Amino acid sequence: MELIESPEVQRLRRIRQLGVGHMVFPGAEHSRFGHALGAMALMRQALVTLRAKGTDISDDEEAAALAAALLHDIGHGPFSHTLEHTLIAGFTHELMSRELIVLLRNQLGHPLDVALQIFDSAYPRPFFNSLVSSQLDMDRLDYLRRDTYYTGVAEGAVGTDRIIRNLRVFPALDDDGPEQLVVDEKGLHAVENFLAARRLMYWQVYLHKAVVAGDRLLRAAIQRARDIGVKMGSPVLLFFLENEITTDRLDERAVIDNYIRLDDSDILYSLKRWTTSADPILADLALRFVHRIFPRVTYLDDQPADGMRAELISRTSAALNIDQDSAGYYVAVDRVDHSAYESNSNSIRVVNTKGRVTELSEMAGVPSVGALNSFETRWYVAVPKEIEIEDLV
Amino acid sequence: MELIESPEVQRLRRIRQLGVGHMVFPGAEHSRFGHALGAMALMRQALVTLRAKGTDISDDEEAAALAAALLHDIGHGPFSHTLEHTLIAGFTHELMSRELIVLLRNQLGHPLDVALQIFDSAYPRPFFNSLVSSQLDMDRLDYLRRDTYYTGVAEGAVGTDRIIRNLRVFPALDDDGPEQLVVDEKGLHAVENFLAARRLMYWQVYLHKAVVAGDRLLRAAIQRARDIGVKMGSPVLLFFLENEITTDRLDERAVIDNYIRLDDSDILYSLKRWTTSADPILADLALRFVHRIFPRVTYLDDQPADGMRAELISRTSAALNIDQDSAGYYVAVDRVDHSAYESNSNSIRVVNTKGRVTELSEMAGVPSVGALNSFETRWYVAVPKEIEIEDLV
Amino acid sequence: MELIESPEVQRLRRIRQLGVGHMVFPGAEHSRFGHALGAMALMRQALVTLRAKGTDISDDEEAAALAAALLHDIGHGPFSHTLEHTLIAGFTHELMSRELIVLLRNQLGHPLDVALQIFDSAYPRPFFNSLVSSQLDMDRLDYLRRDTYYTGVAEGAVGTDRIIRNLRVFPALDDDGPEQLVVDEKGLHAVENFLAARRLMYWQVYLHKAVVAGDRLLRAAIQRARDIGVKMGSPVLLFFLENEITTDRLDERAVIDNYIRLDDSDILYSLKRWTTSADPILADLALRFVHRIFPRVTYLDDQPADGMRAELISRTSAALNIDQDSAGYYVAVDRVDHSAYESNSNSIRVVNTKGRVTELSEMAGVPSVGALNSFETRWYVAVPKEIEIEDLV
Amino acid sequence: MELIESPEVQRLRRIRQLGVGHMVFPGAEHSRFGHALGAMALMRQALVTLRAKGTDISDDEEAAALAAALLHDIGHGPFSHTLEHTLIAGFTHELMSRELIVLLRNQLGHPLDVALQIFDSAYPRPFFNSLVSSQLDMDRLDYLRRDTYYTGVAEGAVGTDRIIRNLRVFPALDDDGPEQLVVDEKGLHAVENFLAARRLMYWQVYLHKAVVAGDRLLRAAIQRARDIGVKMGSPVLLFFLENEITTDRLDERAVIDNYIRLDDSDILYSLKRWTTSADPILADLALRFVHRIFPRVTYLDDQPADGMRAELISRTSAALNIDQDSAGYYVAVDRVDHSAYESNSNSIRVVNTKGRVTELSEMAGVPSVGALNSFETRWYVAVPKEIEIEDLV
Repeated sequence: MELIESPEVQRLRRIRQLGVGHMVFPGAEHSRFGHALGAMALMRQALVTLRAKGTDISDDEEAAALAAALLHDIGHGPFSHTLEHTLIAGFTHELMSRELIVLLRNQLGHPLDVALQIFDSAYPRPFFNSLVSSQLDMDRLDYLRRDTYYTGVAEGAVGTDRIIRNLRVFPALDDDGPEQLVVDEKGLHAVENFLAARRLMYWQVYLHKAVVAGDRLLRAAIQRARDIGVKMGSPVLLFFLENEITTDRLDERAVIDNYIRLDDSDILYSLKRWTTSADPILADLALRFVHRIFPRVTYLDDQPADGMRAELISRTSAALNIDQDSAGYYVAVDRVDHSAYESNSNSIRVVNTKGRVTELSEMAGVPSVGALNSFETRWYVAVPKEIEIEDLV
Repeated sequence: MELIESPEVQRLRRIRQLGVGHMVFPGAEHSRFGHALGAMALMRQALVTLRAKGTDISDDEEAAALAAALLHDIGHGPFSHTLEHTLIAGFTHELMSRELIVLLRNQLGHPLDVALQIFDSAYPRPFFNSLVSSQLDMDRLDYLRRDTYYTGVAEGAVGTDRIIRNLRVFPALDDDGPEQLVVDEKGLHAVENFLAARRLMYWQVYLHKAVVAGDRLLRAAIQRARDIGVKMGSPVLLFFLENEITTDRLDERAVIDNYIRLDDSDILYSLKRWTTSADPILADLALRFVHRIFPRVTYLDDQPADGMRAELISRTSAALNIDQDSAGYYVAVDRVDHSAYESNSNSIRVVNTKGRVTELSEMAGVPSVGALNSFETRWYVAVPKEIEIEDLV
Repeated sequence: MELIESPEVQRLRRIRQLGVGHMVFPGAEHSRFGHALGAMALMRQALVTLRAKGTDISDDEEAAALAAALLHDIGHGPFSHTLEHTLIAGFTHELMSRELIVLLRNQLGHPLDVALQIFDSAYPRPFFNSLVSSQLDMDRLDYLRRDTYYTGVAEGAVGTDRIIRNLRVFPALDDDGPEQLVVDEKGLHAVENFLAARRLMYWQVYLHKAVVAGDRLLRAAIQRARDIGVKMGSPVLLFFLENEITTDRLDERAVIDNYIRLDDSDILYSLKRWTTSADPILADLALRFVHRIFPRVTYLDDQPADGMRAELISRTSAALNIDQDSAGYYVAVDRVDHSAYESNSNSIRVVNTKGRVTELSEMAGVPSVGALNSFETRWYVAVPKEIEIEDLV
Repeated sequence: MELIESPEVQRLRRIRQLGVGHMVFPGAEHSRFGHALGAMALMRQALVTLRAKGTDISDDEEAAALAAALLHDIGHGPFSHTLEHTLIAGFTHELMSRELIVLLRNQLGHPLDVALQIFDSAYPRPFFNSLVSSQLDMDRLDYLRRDTYYTGVAEGAVGTDRIIRNLRVFPALDDDGPEQLVVDEKGLHAVENFLAARRLMYWQVYLHKAVVAGDRLLRAAIQRARDIGVKMGSPVLLFFLENEITTDRLDERAVIDNYIRLDDSDILYSLKRWTTSADPILADLALRFVHRIFPRVTYLDDQPADGMRAELISRTSAALNIDQDSAGYYVAVDRVDHSAYESNSNSIRVVNTKGRVTELSEMAGVPSVGALNSFETRWYVAVPKEIEIEDLV
C-alpha cells in the first residue's frame, strides 16, 4: 500500500509510542509506526472474521477500513501524548489526524474518502466506525499487546486473537436496523480480561509515577523555553513556541508543514542545545531531562490542601536558590485519571447464542466489569528529588 | 533431594494435572509431577526473596518448606479432582496428602516433621504456612502459570515473578507479634491481576462446559461399575469399588498400599476393558468416555425447576431406550461454584511504604477485588447429545 | 472433520509423543493427538500459501492432503518408537498407519482414496507427497516446534511460519515436468536452521542418554515378560506377547482389533502389575521402570571391543547376584545414529528468483548443510547404576 | 550503581542498537542502553555460576566485571556501526569506549581501574577478559537474544541460560597455569547452536540487503554534507564534519565533549534540515533517507568485473540527470563479510568430565562448527531503484 510509504506515515518511525515511557521501561522504545501497522493487521484479521460469519464487505470498504486503522493516530506529535497540550493550545491528536487524512485524501483520492468517513464515525454502516474507534477498537487491542511485549509487564497480556475471533456484526445485513459490532458470548471472559488488563497497564505503565515525572519535566522545559522566547533549537519546534497556534489554525499550510516535520529528534536535539542556554532555569530543566534526573512524584490519598502548591514552591525556591516564579516550573500539583470502561451509548455489546444483545456491564458472570465502570482519579505532587515533603503527604 | 526419587512422588507422573481437561484442551496433558516440582521451585524463589529482605530462615526451615511445597498435592488420586468424591466417600486429596507425608516422614525422618507442621498450618512462624496454603500460595501461583502455558489460554497470564519479588514477612523478627506474609504495595496490581486471572481460568478452563461434561461421564461410569459389582479391570481400582472406604480408614495399610498404586492408567485400562462389559449401560458409558462422546452441558440462568431432573431422565430413557434407573447415569442437574477471593482471617494483606498493613479488599485502587469477593454459582444440566432440551432451558 | 472424532484418532490421546522422553523432560508429556492436529494445521497453512502463489489445488485434493497429514502417524503404538520393534517383529509404524488408513477408507470412503495415494507417495502430483513425507514435511515441522515447546530446549526453535511462507510448487501447472515442492531462496537460511535444529534435538532430546536408558529398560521388561510367558497384565498387550505377530499379518482382523485398543495405559498398567510377579527378574525390571531407576548409558568414543558385552554381563551377574542369562536383560551394547540431511533423490530443492532449481547442499552460502550431510553414529553401553565400568570406557 | 545514572551511559538511550536496522525490521527500535544493561545482567549470572563451581571472585572483581560489561560499548556513536568510519577516519567504537572508561575512571575512581584492565584484556586472570571480549562473551550472548526478540527472527534463538550455566573456569585456582574460561561438554550443543544462530542473524538481519542499502544511503548523505561544507544542522555533528578528526585525537577535550553530545537525534535532525539544502544532491540524498527511499542492493555471485562501478555511475548519471561526480554518491560496489567462528588463540574451549580441554572445532559431534570456521564474503552493488541493472548481475 502506497500509504505506508508516504512521508506522513514514515514520520511515525521517529515518534516513540510511549513518549517518555521508554526512559522508565528500557525495552519500550518502540515507535508509533509499528503500532499503525499493527492496528492495520488486526483490522485485516477482524474483516476476515466478519466476512467468514457472513457479513458482506466490499473491496472498497476493506481498503478504507485498513487505511483508517493505519492512519487513526497519524496526527500524533513528538513524545506522543506528553506534548499534546503544550505545543498547541487545546490540541488533541485526533484533530491533526483528521487534517492529515484530508491532506492524503486530496493527494491520493478515492478510498480515503470512505476512510475519512469511518474516522469521523460517520460511515452509514456503524460497525466499521466501531472497529476504528470504540471501547474495543483495533487501536486499543494493538497497543495493549504491543506495550505489554515491549515493557515486559505481564499484567497487560490480552487474548487478542480470541477477542477478534468472537467479533460479529449484528443484525445480519438483511435485517433492519443499523449493523452494530458485537461480541459473541464465547468471548465474554476475553473481553472482561481485556478491560482489566488495560486498566492495569494504565496504573503500572502509562501513569507510572516515573512516567508522570518525566512528562512534567519535559513539559516544564518546553514551557520555559516558550516563556523566555528561546532562539536556539530546531526551527520546526521554534515555530510552535513562537507562534501561539490554536486549534482553529490546524488547516493552515504553514502549521501543517511544520507539524509533519516535527518529531522526537527535534525535541531531543533542542533539549540538548538548551543545556547550554544562558537562561539558568532552562539550562537546568533541559539538563535534568537529558540526564534523566526526574522529579519525584508522590500519589496522595486525598485531594491536596489549598496551600500545597505554594508551600512546595516555597521549599523548592529555597532549596534550589531560585525565585518563586522559576520554582514554579519545578513543581506540579495535579491529578491523573482513567476510566476502564464506560457503559454508555458507545459501550461494548454481547450477543448470546439465542441472538439477544446485552450491554457488557449488564451481563451476568462478569462482576469485575461493574467495578471498572467508574472514573478513577489520583492526585499527585511532583517536586525535585532534593526537596523533602514527607511531612506534607 | 531423595524425596523426588520416591515412588510416591514419581507416581504423580502418571496423574494428569487437569483430569479430563486434556480431552478438551489438547495441549494440556501435563502431569502433577511437573506441578509439584514447579511449586517447589517457586518456594525456593520466595525464600531467596524473603532472606534478601532480612528475614531469618534456617537451613532446616528451608528444607522443610521446599518439601512441603513438593508434597502438598501428593495425595491426589487418578484424574485429580474428578474422582475425589467417587472412590472414597467424603474424601479430599488433602487428607491423603497428610497420610503420605506421615508415611514418608516415618521412612525418612527429621525435616519432614517440620514440613508436616507447615502442611498442617501449625508451624509457629505462620508465614511458612501461608507460603504453602493460603490465597496466595506457591501452589496457586504455579498451577496458574502452568495451566496457562499448556492450555494456551491467554487470560491466565500472571506476573508470578513480580508477585514473589514483592512478598515480605511482617513484622521483622525482632518485633513482637506473629510473622505474617504480606505483599509490598508495589505488587498490588500484580496480585489484583492474579486474582482476576485465576477466576477467569476457572470459568474458561477448570469449569469449561466440556470439562464438566467429561467429569460427569467419567464419574457415572465409575459409579455404574461399582453399582453392578464389576469384576473386570485393574485390581487396585476394584479394591476401592468393592470396599466402601471411608475417610476414617485412610491410615490402613491396605488402603494406602492400593492408593499409591492407583493412577490414570488404571482408570483408562479399566474403562477400555469395560467397553466389552456384559452390562450394556457400563459398556456404553465406558465407550462414550474412551471415544470422547461427552454429554452436552448447558448452563442455566437460574436454579432449575423442581421437576427438571425427572423430565430429563424421562426423555433420556425414551431416546436411548433404557429404563429410568439406567437413564439416571446419563443425566445430571447440579451446580459449580467458585470464589475468586475471600476476605477473611486468611486473606491477603498488603503493606505500604510506611509499614501499614491493610487487607487487600480494603485497599484503594483495586476496585475489582471487591467485585471478586463473593461466591459465584452456576447451575447446569448434562444430558447425552442425542436429547433435545431447548424448550427447557 | 469426522476423522478427528474417530476412535482410531482419539486413541492417539493416550500415546505420549516422546515415549519415555516425558520421564526425562518433565514438561514433555504431550500426546500424538496434538501432533496429528498440528501437522494438519501446518498442511492447511501450506496449501493456503501454495494457492496464493498460483498453484491450482482442488477441494478434494485439499481434503485428502489434510487427511493424510492428520493420519500420517496413526499407526504408532504405545510409547511411540520405543516398542516399535518389540511387539511385532520387523514392524514400523508406517506399515500400521497404512492398514488403519485403509480401514478408515473402507468405512468412510472417497477422499481417503487420494489421501492413501499421497501417504504412499504415489499421487501423480508429487508435491502433495512431499508435503506429507520428505525431508521438509509437515510432520517434521510440527514435531520440532511442538517438542521444543514442551521440553523447553531452546536449540530446537525453528521459523516454521517462514519456511511454509517460502514453499512453492515448481514448475507451474502449465509447464511440463512433474510439479515438485521447492523452497524460495528467501527461505534458505530458515531451512538451514531447521536442519541444524533438528539435528540438535536428536542429540539433546530424542537420543538423550537418559531417554535411551529408559527405552532399553522398558524393552527389556517387555522382552522378559514375553520370554517367561507372563499371564498377568492387559489382555491386549498379552495378545502381542503370546502370539509372534509378523508384519505380514497386520491386515488380520484380530491383529488390528487388538492394536487399536493398545496404548500407553496398557503398558503402564501391566508394568505395575508385574512388579508383583513371581519371576524376580521381571518384577525387578518392572519396578525399576515404574520407580524410574534407569540404567546408566555411557557413550563411547569408538566401536566397543569384542568382549565388552560379555564383560558387562559378567559384572552385572555378580553385582545383582543373578545368573548370566538374566543379567543379559540389564545390559546393552548398541548404537544410535542420525542423519541430519541426505542429499539424494528426495532432497530439498531451492529455487532462486530467476527460476533455477538447486539441490540444497549445492547452494552457496549454506556451509553447514554440507557438514550435516552425513550419517552420525554413536556407540553406547547401558548397565545398571550399581555397576562400575569406568575402567572400560 | 551510579554508573548507570551517568550521562555517558544515559546517552546510549538515544542510540539505536541496530542503526538503520529499525527501518527494515519495524519492531527493532531498541537502543544500546538496554543492551548495556543486558550484558551486565548476563555477567552477573555468569559470576554466580562460576562462584557456585568453586571459582574465587572478590567483591571488587565482581564490581569491575559488571562495570566492564556495562561499559564495553559505551563508545558507540550515532546509528551504531553505520557511521563508525564516516565521522572519524580509522575509527572503531572500541577506541572511544576506552577513552570514555578512562574519563569515568578519572571521575569515579577505583573499581574502574580493574574494569579498564579487563576491557583491555590485560587483567591477570584471563577468564574475566574472556567474559567481556571473546567469541563467547556476554556482549554477543546479549545482543543475539535481544535482537532476536525485537526483530522476531526465529533463527537467532539461543539457549543463553544453558550456555552460561555451563561456563567454568579451568583449571581451578590452586592449579598452576592461567585460569581460562571453558564450557562444560554438556553445553556443547548449545554453543554450536549459538554460533550457527549468530551467523544466520548476520545474513538475515545485520547484513540484510535493505539494511546495507540504508547504511550506504546514510553514509553517502553524510559524506556529501562534509564535501560541500554544509553549515546547517546540529553543531555537534558539524564539528565532526568540519574537522578531520583522526583517531590520535580521541583524547582531546573538544573531541570527547562533542562526541558524548552526539546521538541519533543529531543525525535525524540534520538530515531533515538538509532536505531543504540549496545543494540538490544533498537535499535529494537526505530526502531519500528521511522518506525511506533506499537504493536497491543486489548480491553478486562473484567479484564484480572491473568496469562495473563506472558503468553504474554512468547509468545513474543519465537516469537522474546529474553529473558523474554526483552520481558517485548514489552508487556502491563493495562487499560484506562475516566470520562465524575462528579457531585461533582466542577460540572457544570445551572441557569434558575427565578434565580434558579441547578447542571447539576439534571436538567430535559438532560437524557444523568446522563448516563455520571460515570467512564468508559477498560482493554487492547498490544503485537507486530507478536504475535497471539486470543485464549486469
